[in-house]
Amino acid sequence: MVCFGIDPGLGRLGYGIVSQDGDALRALDYGIISTKAGVPIATRLAELFTSLEDKISSHKPDAIAVERLFFGRNTTTAEMVFQARGVVLLAAARFGLIPYEPKPSEVKMSVCGYGGAEKQQVQGMVKNILNLESIPKPDDAADALAIAITGLSLSMYDMRNGGMTR
Amino acid sequence: MVCFGIDPGLGRLGYGIVSQDGDALRALDYGIISTKAGVPIATRLAELFTSLEDKISSHKPDAIAVERLFFGRNTTTAEMVFQARGVVLLAAARFGLIPYEPKPSEVKMSVCGYGGAEKQQVQGMVKNILNLESIPKPDDAADALAIAITGLSLSMYDMRNGGMTR
Repeated sequence: MVCFGIDPGLGRLGYGIVSQDGDALRALDYGIISTKAGVPIATRLAELFTSLEDKISSHKPDAIAVERLFFGRNTTTAEMVFQARGVVLLAAARFGLIPYEPKPSEVKMSVCGYGGAEKQQVQGMVKNILNLESIPKPDDAADALAIAITGLSLSMYDMRNGGMTR
Repeated sequence: MVCFGIDPGLGRLGYGIVSQDGDALRALDYGIISTKAGVPIATRLAELFTSLEDKISSHKPDAIAVERLFFGRNTTTAEMVFQARGVVLLAAARFGLIPYEPKPSEVKMSVCGYGGAEKQQVQGMVKNILNLESIPKPDDAADALAIAITGLSLSMYDMRNGGMTR
């Protein structure tokens, strides 16, 4: 079982691919996809979509997890990031997968057992769960691995229960 | 010169295609693309993308115009609509066009000569400019025709000035 986790963004999108074999979880790949400010947003969205399609088709995941995003009053950031997130959800659907959409608190719960965990705790747990020598960098990639781990838990839950948590 | 205007939305997206030949503007097609609530959002975005690709490739516009959106505190609506708008911008870019992104006040200015015009005034002017027998229905389609008319003005301006207003 392989899950592709995504921390959505326009300028920097974090991705992390995690496989589960029995109880053993392993990071297959992680990093960021970035697009440059100053380029028209439609062009940046197209770059994001193409890079994401390439990554998804080369890893052929069984599940995709895309974190939900919450904004306060910063609606300019919200506009950019939600537009990017729409393209991410589309890439998943075009690959035939309905993505899991965990909230940040659900990712913390899944990785740390506590929905109010700090960012550093989540990253430390990602390192331990995946048996890595150090915390993955940059932060967006570490976050995406946590999202992928959450997606695996949700997939396992669905498989055991024949239900759908998404 | 043909412009494809879009009033973005997830549940209902308005589209309107307008051609300009000299001073004569004509509505080639208009209507809405709708997706059903209760279906996963990724699936709805994929339906929207496919319908839009079909419409764009059958009309082969020279320009695309997608209205900017502004939200107050209703961030749930903003999330859905901005995600849909991201997919719309992507569809334009995949067709090789960088869309114009007029604000609502710019559409009103372009169609009515006054940025504070009422919705009814805009729709009345759309009917007159396009020589239609009645105001196009539904509202989303009439709005999209106004957005297409604005896109034509911006294209004409760019052509005359060799510049880029987008």
